[in-house]
Formats: sequence, structure tokens, C-alpha cells
Amino acid sequence: MRKLGIGLIGTGFMGKAHAMAWKAAASFSGDVQPVLVSVADINGDAAQRAQQQFGFQRWTNRWQDLIDDPEIDVISITSPNRFHAEQSLAAIAAGKHVHCEKPLAPDSATAERMYRAAEQAGVITQVGFNYVKNPLLKLAKKMIADGDLGEINGFRGIHAEDFLANPAVPWSWRLDPSGGAGAVADLGSHILGMARFLLGPIEELVADLETVIKTRPESPGAATKKAVEVDDIARLTVKFARGCSGHVEANWVASGHKMQLGFEITGSKGSLIFNQERFNELQYFRFSEDESKNGFMTLVAGPEHYPYGLFCPAPGHQLGFNDLKTIEMLELIQAIADGNAAGPDFKEAFEIQKIVDAAVTSSRERSWIKI
Amino acid sequence: MRKLGIGLIGTGFMGKAHAMAWKAAASFSGDVQPVLVSVADINGDAAQRAQQQFGFQRWTNRWQDLIDDPEIDVISITSPNRFHAEQSLAAIAAGKHVHCEKPLAPDSATAERMYRAAEQAGVITQVGFNYVKNPLLKLAKKMIADGDLGEINGFRGIHAEDFLANPAVPWSWRLDPSGGAGAVADLGSHILGMARFLLGPIEELVADLETVIKTRPESPGAATKKAVEVDDIARLTVKFARGCSGHVEANWVASGHKMQLGFEITGSKGSLIFNQERFNELQYFRFSEDESKNGFMTLVAGPEHYPYGLFCPAPGHQLGFNDLKTIEMLELIQAIADGNAAGPDFKEAFEIQKIVDAAVTSSRERSWIKI
Amino acid sequence: MRKLGIGLIGTGFMGKAHAMAWKAAASFSGDVQPVLVSVADINGDAAQRAQQQFGFQRWTNRWQDLIDDPEIDVISITSPNRFHAEQSLAAIAAGKHVHCEKPLAPDSATAERMYRAAEQAGVITQVGFNYVKNPLLKLAKKMIADGDLGEINGFRGIHAEDFLANPAVPWSWRLDPSGGAGAVADLGSHILGMARFLLGPIEELVADLETVIKTRPESPGAATKKAVEVDDIARLTVKFARGCSGHVEANWVASGHKMQLGFEITGSKGSLIFNQERFNELQYFRFSEDESKNGFMTLVAGPEHYPYGLFCPAPGHQLGFNDLKTIEMLELIQAIADGNAAGPDFKEAFEIQKIVDAAVTSSRERSWIKI
Amino acid sequence: MRKLGIGLIGTGFMGKAHAMAWKAAASFSGDVQPVLVSVADINGDAAQRAQQQFGFQRWTNRWQDLIDDPEIDVISITSPNRFHAEQSLAAIAAGKHVHCEKPLAPDSATAERMYRAAEQAGVITQVGFNYVKNPLLKLAKKMIADGDLGEINGFRGIHAEDFLANPAVPWSWRLDPSGGAGAVADLGSHILGMARFLLGPIEELVADLETVIKTRPESPGAATKKAVEVDDIARLTVKFARGCSGHVEANWVASGHKMQLGFEITGSKGSLIFNQERFNELQYFRFSEDESKNGFMTLVAGPEHYPYGLFCPAPGHQLGFNDLKTIEMLELIQAIADGNAAGPDFKEAFEIQKIVDAAVTSSRERSWIKI
Repeated sequence: MRKLGIGLIGTGFMGKAHAMAWKAAASFSGDVQPVLVSVADINGDAAQRAQQQFGFQRWTNRWQDLIDDPEIDVISITSPNRFHAEQSLAAIAAGKHVHCEKPLAPDSATAERMYRAAEQAGVITQVGFNYVKNPLLKLAKKMIADGDLGEINGFRGIHAEDFLANPAVPWSWRLDPSGGAGAVADLGSHILGMARFLLGPIEELVADLETVIKTRPESPGAATKKAVEVDDIARLTVKFARGCSGHVEANWVASGHKMQLGFEITGSKGSLIFNQERFNELQYFRFSEDESKNGFMTLVAGPEHYPYGLFCPAPGHQLGFNDLKTIEMLELIQAIADGNAAGPDFKEAFEIQKIVDAAVTSSRERSWIKI
Repeated sequence: MRKLGIGLIGTGFMGKAHAMAWKAAASFSGDVQPVLVSVADINGDAAQRAQQQFGFQRWTNRWQDLIDDPEIDVISITSPNRFHAEQSLAAIAAGKHVHCEKPLAPDSATAERMYRAAEQAGVITQVGFNYVKNPLLKLAKKMIADGDLGEINGFRGIHAEDFLANPAVPWSWRLDPSGGAGAVADLGSHILGMARFLLGPIEELVADLETVIKTRPESPGAATKKAVEVDDIARLTVKFARGCSGHVEANWVASGHKMQLGFEITGSKGSLIFNQERFNELQYFRFSEDESKNGFMTLVAGPEHYPYGLFCPAPGHQLGFNDLKTIEMLELIQAIADGNAAGPDFKEAFEIQKIVDAAVTSSRERSWIKI
Repeated sequence: MRKLGIGLIGTGFMGKAHAMAWKAAASFSGDVQPVLVSVADINGDAAQRAQQQFGFQRWTNRWQDLIDDPEIDVISITSPNRFHAEQSLAAIAAGKHVHCEKPLAPDSATAERMYRAAEQAGVITQVGFNYVKNPLLKLAKKMIADGDLGEINGFRGIHAEDFLANPAVPWSWRLDPSGGAGAVADLGSHILGMARFLLGPIEELVADLETVIKTRPESPGAATKKAVEVDDIARLTVKFARGCSGHVEANWVASGHKMQLGFEITGSKGSLIFNQERFNELQYFRFSEDESKNGFMTLVAGPEHYPYGLFCPAPGHQLGFNDLKTIEMLELIQAIADGNAAGPDFKEAFEIQKIVDAAVTSSRERSWIKI
Repeated sequence: MRKLGIGLIGTGFMGKAHAMAWKAAASFSGDVQPVLVSVADINGDAAQRAQQQFGFQRWTNRWQDLIDDPEIDVISITSPNRFHAEQSLAAIAAGKHVHCEKPLAPDSATAERMYRAAEQAGVITQVGFNYVKNPLLKLAKKMIADGDLGEINGFRGIHAEDFLANPAVPWSWRLDPSGGAGAVADLGSHILGMARFLLGPIEELVADLETVIKTRPESPGAATKKAVEVDDIARLTVKFARGCSGHVEANWVASGHKMQLGFEITGSKGSLIFNQERFNELQYFRFSEDESKNGFMTLVAGPEHYPYGLFCPAPGHQLGFNDLKTIEMLELIQAIADGNAAGPDFKEAFEIQKIVDAAVTSSRERSWIKI
């Protein structure tokens, strides 16, 4: 049995999610077993609590300790976004594999530097676009590749939530323009990544980015307001290299929508509809000979959709969000064992970031942009 | 009791629908009673059959006879699209009210000429955008006006069907560019009209029109192909005069979708979701104080949503497509009685056509267009 | 062209529905054309208004006039329930065909007398169980007969509404025990009729009838209360002659449900799910070879489901409640023309009433009952 | 920090689920930390593999070793059903807490013996009815208790799956009558437990149990058939001690249904609808003053529904089946720490088993049975 030492940076919500995912992945990963070596948090108390609670062997308040730790093979990064580049690059330089939460970087130039560094170092990288780990999205991708939908003729994608819909929600780091764009980066990257996962590269777009709520309280309940400079809603029209086009929307002021990350893909023979709000279901239409018995079919995730069967022995039991995270870690373990890419890797994150950057440019210049 | 003489042009499917709607509207229209005077079809046999079946007093194979008939007050036009302008203008010239099926005209210049003629003649006009006659859309409009959604911040609209998804479907009059644009005119006009009905004028857009299936059999099963010049899919990004923006799609190759005419409207306090495929339902979200009991509510059409109660005494019974047509005719009768506009009238059809024309221009010039 | 004279008793909501349905049916009924001869209402003013509004040739305040009218071939009965038997029998005695709203009679003995009288007189009868006229239910029946579901192994049926859920709703004629049972008769008859339509005779049952709200205001807002003696909820376990069993519920205090008239039918090869709340849809499951692409399919009513195509030329447009009523009348016209039964006829209403009576007995005796 | 030693019996699917749940629960359980001490499987190789994969300290092929192990505080039982009683009683006798998968016992007499033994020994017990651990079911229970639905007037419950729908599925241990009843025990216990969780005791019932597929292949593909003696479908009519009644169905031949574990609960003021197939949603209806804006609301699980927030920081992310298992273990840990019952405990399993037994008797005797 081969041991894979894990070092975790950050003990907030995603830190906990990573720790749990690494432990759960161990139950499926066979001969390569992840071992929780050390956890780092600038707040030493938090690091110590996390060490106990999540079962790490040691803790530290200096993330650099993990980089220097010879027992650690993989750095799992859940720190605030502004540290992602520095920490990733340090880990790569030390020859460690990296799983980094999104966004990888505030812009595509930085992302490019990061993926090239990883390529040169020959380490495996992964970025936390966990939604595409859904067994039903693997099925969707296979169905498209197999021609179940015929020739693809259209895409509609959206990632809408409502956590910033209320104008009383105060200014926060998500709205800091130094971190990059707004909804188009934070949410748009998910649906753009999903679009690429299913349909391949996007090569041209026109976009309209909008700041719906122009000022927000500086802090909760504060009377003083701070201007918002990033987009609340981004609307893209995109052209895929394969020849079809589509609409894509990213929106964090979409009242009532908690996780409307979804798409409709249509083709000459059939269609797929997906919504993360019911991510154990996939709607599938295919023209049949008998028109009187035709319609959208609701496919329910089950053991025949790998790797659902690792988690539940029967259909209808349902995977949860944290299971997607576990699949991510499991695939990273396997990639390290095999030397293959686990995906979405740093290069993929760079490709997604280029689309985000193009959307910002297109909106500013009010014109179509080639990517 | 006042009689309102009806003359119907066309005996195809919409001709039958009009005849049935006029008869049904009589049950609700009180003191002003429509009377089926005469029906015209260039095919005399069809006209005669329609006269008997639908209960008209007489028939003719010359539509001009209806124009000249002094007992006829309203001309109901269901002829092929290319006759709409000529017949409408003749009816207006004769001082008759006109209900004309959409499209009113192949371009906005013609539509403008028609609505100005009607205005000068002082006749009541109506164009068959029947979907907005839905009691739940009247409710939606009222809710938006009442501020139930707070400040509107976004719109997503679509009208997608799949009747041309199969490349084997032959070329037909819908694909004839002399009749105007493709999906953006045929289907887009419905969702654009709905957008205007709910949110008011659109003043700017960028659009991408696409011919997905480049050639089709000249006739059913024919080996020879004919080029398709009109759009199968149109994707618009639109800006409303009220300040919000949105995506709009028109699509007649959307496999699996039979009548996906719908929208999502979001605001600072709440949202609405509608889909014509379940048009007796309206999804309504509004932020509540108690976050643990919050979510989209499915409103079901019932007697409290006028004029549903004319048709059914209890909720859940459901209106059908033909009932929407009946409401149209009923409102036209009432408009004639009151001297008010029934809407959507020729002017409104002109406004919608301008957006369609702008979409065509924007797509050709690949740029934003002011309307 | 053969004329069929119609005489209508009652001008309330169902009276209007009948009149509209007869007029609409004329558009589809070809050579046999219904003619609205006379309308009767004990309230002469109402009768006169109805004559004008619905387009009858004459009116009367004596329903017996219709029976005596030689120009009338069919009596359409929408009077209060307690008159159904007397009026039907008089019409039958006069050799007229009868469409009578449900319930046909307060008990099966009366219903038996009525259907035997009709049989002897050789007239066509029909009872207003209009929900089974749904094109998708015709499809469901055909699918079951064709073996699409394999061997049927179970049924769950329900008809639940909420119009009596509020204890403040006053006592009314529906709660009068002299009119027969409560929810089991009023609503249960629909789902039991649907069960028989799809799966054939029921031969045994055990039932539990419950009066949930024991007293109600004597009149709206009244302080004095009146005891309720009929059932608000009836729960049946039934055994079909074909060998399978099922649960059936009738319930008019089911808060939130406006028209939950539905069923699930399962078989060895597949299943169907239906709900009147979305009656233009039918859910169909069938085991497929490829388990990864299996699930319930939503069939949407369209022209391939006769007689939907009479009403709408394309799928997804949707029939409404009144269209079901029109199909009823159309089939009655055709039955009179052909000499065949239109169904559900008086005999069928008798069979349904026997089940209702057995449910009452079973609940009282707390035991299984053979029918 | 207090350590809680865990001993696991069984390494099949539920064994893995238990191990993962114990590890995940550790992340939330604060000062009381579960430790995976030892795993037992009669197959030593399986035990050894499980020890490595799941992270136990040791393994054994004798479950009695766990009973004798002083470092083990809790026995987690996932062995075949026929061992549940013996192993539980041994653990209790050794003063250990027990989590046992359902069914606790083949009949209520055995279950009674087990719960009394636990009571006397003063150990905490829990039975794997994990579906009630759903945060939205905790909400449902609270809403009912708070009177959000008014006075409860009806229940419809079902647990239907289709894993035995195909007659070619061979005979197996689930069909062995020595293990107790069929669907009513295996699936019925879940929905009956859910009914009790939400509405309290059931005191009377009439039931009909049916063996749909009378013989099955002795083994996969075998020509020889073996008779099936247990029920495939059970249909109950139940009366709750609180005064309302309901239908309950258990069914493992319900083609197309993978996990239809659901209910509808109606009351004088509102209703709830739940289906495990979409267990992150709860449908809630409540009569409102404004009838034009009333309908079922879809509540989506979020952090405001404890303990969802332990798993995901935002609504719409969704829990999965294994998370319910984790909540179970977490609550058992907390119960052991507090000395309180975690529920559903052995006594509750006994109460559920009594209903199952009564259903069997009622069906055999064809009569109502008091519990």
C-alpha cells in the first residue's frame, strides 16, 4: 500500500470539506491511501482544533511548513483567493501535487504562469470545479460523444444564485475588483467550465456585464456605502469551436435561486437538461419512431453511472455536494497513481479564465471578442 | 342587444380556431353579441364546408366580398401571412375592425403603414399574440406593477419548439425569406411581445442569428435540396428602457421542446417563472422573514385570476389553448363596445417587429443596435 | 346533414359549459349537427338570458316542455342532483337521448332503474365523467391493453380537493345525506370510474369513511352549527377482477390540492403516472435494456393523441377543462349517429355507484365487502 | 477529549457506509471523538481489507472479539439480518452501546426482548432508520408540532421501489419468510417509522398483503422455481392515536420507482408533501389571505435547517444519502455523551415491528386489528 501525504491549507468551510473528502476517498482508493499529515491555518487555534477534529497528525500556523514537509505529497489549498497563486506556485516549486480551490487566479496571465509552472515541474494539479464530477455529467459527456443527441445545435447555460440579491447585503471580498471580475468569475467559471467539459472550446463571445446594486453598506448594517465595481450579472453569447452557439448567464442577484447551475443542450436527435438543484437527475429527450410515446425522460443517478456505485448500492439514494468533493479527491489520487491528469487542472482553469477575461473586455468594448 | 357581424378569412386550423372562439366568446360577451356572418376561402368547397360546420350564415371564395359586406363589422384574418397586409388595409379602408393573425407584416415599415391606417380610420385592431391573454400573465403583470418583486433586475425569455429540428423536414413557406425573418419573427415575436407586456419597451440589443440546417429537401422526401436563408435560432441580449437587461432566445430546432415559451423575471424582492408548457401555473418567489420556510410557490390558475372564472368555477380545472383565443375575441368585442384598445394591437405588433428587424441588423452587422 | 335538437336543463355553471360544448362540438361533428333548440330553468329570467347568451332558439321555465318538444332529440341535464333521476326517466320515457351530469342517482338502486329504463327504450345515455375523455387517458388505456406495462400489479388512485378543508365553510347541499354519500360519491366516483375505465371491474373492497369536520355553520358566517353526516375522506382498498389491487382515496379537505385526480399504475414491464392538475402530461416508465438511460418519460399531449388534433394542430398547446366537455358531447353525437354507446353511460354510472355504496357499507360494518 | 471506541460488524455495503459515517461524524462531534477500533467479518480477508481501507486499528473474523474488546464502546451492526438479535444482545450484555441496521428482529416479540435488555443495561441504542435524520423532516416535525398545518386530518405514506419488479429476479434472503414479512417489513418499516416520527402512534389498521410474483428462479437464471411466501405489496389503512387516519403502502415491485419513500400530510390550515427521491425539498402549502397568490411552496434544504449547515454553508448544495447516515452516527455520539436517547432506538423499532406484525395478522384474518 502506497501512502499519499496530504497537507491542508485553511480550516474554514472548504477546509473541512477537503478533510472530509480526503478521508472518504480513502475508502475507495485501494492501494494508494491518503494520509492526513498536517493542517495549516494562520490562526493557530483553528489549526489545532482542525487537527483534532479532522484527524491530522500535526498542525501549524505557517502554510510554508507544509511546503517544506517531506511527508506531504499533495497540498490542498482552501485559503482566501488572494493566496492561491503564491501557495500553488510554492507547492509546485517543491514538487508537490496541488488541489486548489477556484478561482485559481484573478486573471488569465497569472493562471497561465501557474499552469506552465506545474507542467514544467511535472506535478498533477486540480482546481475545485467539483460540479463536473457528478456521475450524471460524465454520462452527459459520454452521450454527447456517442452521438445520442445527434449533431449539437445549441447550448443554454446558467449559474444563478441569490446570495447578493438583497441590497442590504454588505460589501465583501467577493466584490473587491482586485480579486478579478464578479459573478462572471465566481459563478460564470462553473458554467463555462461545464460548457467546455461537455462541448469543448469556446472561441468567440459578446458579453454584457452589469452591476445591479451600485453601492452596498461598507459592513453589516453600516450607514456608509461603498461603490460596487464588479458585475452582479453577466450575459454572454458564445460560439463554440465545434460550430454551435449559446447563451450563458452568471448571476448572483437572482432572487429565489439557490443553486441554479444548469444547462440545456439540444441536438438534431435529442436533448439534455440539467440543473444542479436536482443534480441526481438528468432530463433526456430523443426523437422516437412512435411519436405518441415520446418525451423527456428523467434519468435518476444509480450504480450504473460510475462512480455513484461507490457511494450507494441502489439508485434513488442520491449523492450530496460533499460526495462530489470526494470524487474530486479520489480522481486526483488516481491521477497521481497513474500519472494522468485528473482534470479540471490548472491548464483548464487558465482556459476558463481566458473566457472570463474576454467577457469583461467584450462588455467594456461593447463588441464581439475572439478568444 | 347589439350585434357584431363577423367575417372570417381562411378556413384552415386558425380559421376553425377563430370561429370557435367567436362562438365561445358569445357566452361571455353580454349585450354585444358576435354573429358569424360570412366565411371566405379561395377554395370555395372549403368555404362552404366551413359555413356549415362553424355555423356562418354565408360563404364566398372572394375575401373582398367580406370587405364589401355591410353586415360585417369585424374581419378576422387567418389567411397565409403574405395576404395579411393587403387584407388588413382593405378592411381598415372599409372602416371595419380587424383581428389579424401574426405576423402582421414581413417588416416594420409595412407594419407601421398598417397601424397608422388603422389609427386614422379609428378602427379597433388586434394581432393574435394570444399567449399574453393568460389570466396568470395578467396576474404577473399586476404583481410586477404592484412591486411584489421589488425592483426588476433581470429577464430571461425563450420561445423554443422543435418542429424544424429534423433536417429531413422539407423547405416550406416559414423558411421563405420574402416573408421576413425566421425563428426570431415566428417565435421570437411571442416572447418579445410577452417581455414588452410585462416589462415595457426594449431599447437596445445585440443579436446572433443562426441557420442551423443550411439546406432542406425541396419537398417532403425530395432528393433535391433548397438553401435555407432565415434563422433557425436567434439569441438576443436586450436592454429594457426601465433599466434592466436580459437574454431572449427564439429557436425552432430545440429538440424535445413543444411549446417552451417562458420566462424568468427576477427582482430585488422576488421572482416569477413561467412556461407555456404548464400555462395554468406560475412560480412565485418572495423573500420571507422566516428563511427556513421560503421557496418558490406554484400558483395555480383559478377563479380569482380573471377571466379564468368565466371558463371554470374552481381552480385546477385548467384553461386550454383555445380558451386563450376566446379571451382574445372577448376582449376585442369589449374594446369595440367601449372604444378602447384590446391589445396587442397593430401598433404593438409594429413595436415588436422593430425589435425583430433590429435583431436581424445586429446579427448581420455584429454590433449593438439602438431601437 | 342531419340535425340533432338539443334541450338543456339548467343555466348555472354546468349549463353554460354544456351549451358551449355543444356549440364547439358542432365544429367537429361533420354531417350530424347539434342545434340548440331550447333551454329550461325554473327561473324564467335566467332561462331567457341563457337563450340569448348561448344561442338557443327558445326558452322555458318548465323542464317538462323540453321533454314534450318534438324538435329535441337530446336532453342535457345540469339541474341540481336531486332532479337527475326524475328528469332522466322522463326524457327516456319520451324516447330522447340523455346526457346527465353526475351523480346519476343517490344510490345504486335508483341508478339501476335508470339504466334499465334507457336500455329498454333503446336511447343513448351518457353521464358527465368528463375526465376520462382526456386523449392521454385514451392512450393510457390503449397502452395497458397493448401490454406496454406488462402484467398490471398495482393501482393507486386519488381524487382530492380542498374546497371543504376550512371548517368555516358552511353546510351545503353537498353535505346533505339524502343526496347520498359525501366525498366518496362526489369525488370518489371520478377516480373509481377512471380505475374501471383503465383496469376494469372492482369486485371487493374494504373502506374507511371519515367525517373530519363534524359540524359546520348552518349558513355563511352563522353562529349556529349543523352536524355533518357524510364523509369528508374515504379510503378504500380495492381488488380488481383482473387480479391486482389498489388504494383509492376521495377527499375534499385536502388542503392545497385543487384537482388532485390522479393515479399510478404499475406493471411488470412499466408504469404510468397521471395527475389531472397537469392533465396534458402522462408519465410513462418502461424498463429498458440500457439501465443507464432509463426513467420516467413525460408524454405531452399532441395531435398524435386523438382527438387532441381536433383542437390544436401542434403538441404543447394544451387542452382545457371545457375541451374535455366538448369531447364528451362530440362522442355522444357520434354514438347517436352510429347507434353505439358513448360511455360512460347510465349502466357504467350504476356500476360506479355500486362501489360507492359498498364503500359506505364496508365502513359501517368495518369489514371487506364483495360487490 | 473523550474517545469513543467503535467496533464494526460486517464489511459489505452498509459496513462501508457505517465506517465512512463514523469518520465523517468525527468532524462535527467536538469533544467526543469516535475512534475506529476494530472491524469484524466472518471472511477474514474482507475484514483485513476493510481495516486498511476504512482505517480501523485492527480486524477479526470473530464478531465476538468486538464484544470482548474493552476499547470498544459502540457496536455498529451491519451483518445479515438473522444475526441482528444475537449480536445486539451480546453487545448489550457486555454494556456496549449499539447501532443496529434494520430490521432489528423478525418479529415484535424478539424486538421487545432486545429493547428491554437495553433498557435494563442502560445502554444507548439506535436502529438504522436513517431517512428521518433528514433536516427537512426535522423541520416537518416541528411545523406539525407548531401548528403550521392546523389540525392534522390525513396522511398518505408510501415506500415503493422496483428492485423485485422483474419476475426474473431470483429468490433471495429478502424473500425468506423466516426473516419475517416481505415488503411491509423491509420498506414498510421506513414509512411507518416516518409516520410515527411525524404524527405519533398508530393504534388500529386493516391491511392487505399480496405476493405479486408467486415463484422466482431459485438462483440467477435457474430454470427451477421457488415459491415466494412473503408480501411484495402491502396496503394498510391506519388510524393514528391523535385522531386522523391514512393509507400506507409498501411495495418492492413498483416499476420505475427507485426510492419513492414519501408522504402527504394534510391539515386544516396547510399541507406537506415529501418524497425521498428529492429529499432536499419539502413542499409546503398554507392557506393565505390572498387567494390569488397561494399554492405549494418548495422549501429547499439550507443552513437554516439544522444540521444541514454542518455539511454545506449555503442552500441548494444538497445532502446525500451518506450524509443522513453521518447525522445518525453524530446523534448517537451526542446521545452517548448526554445520556439521552438518539432515536429511533430499539424501543421505537419494537413499536414499528408491532405495526408490521399487525398488518400481517390483519391481512390473514381479513379484519381490522387493534395494536
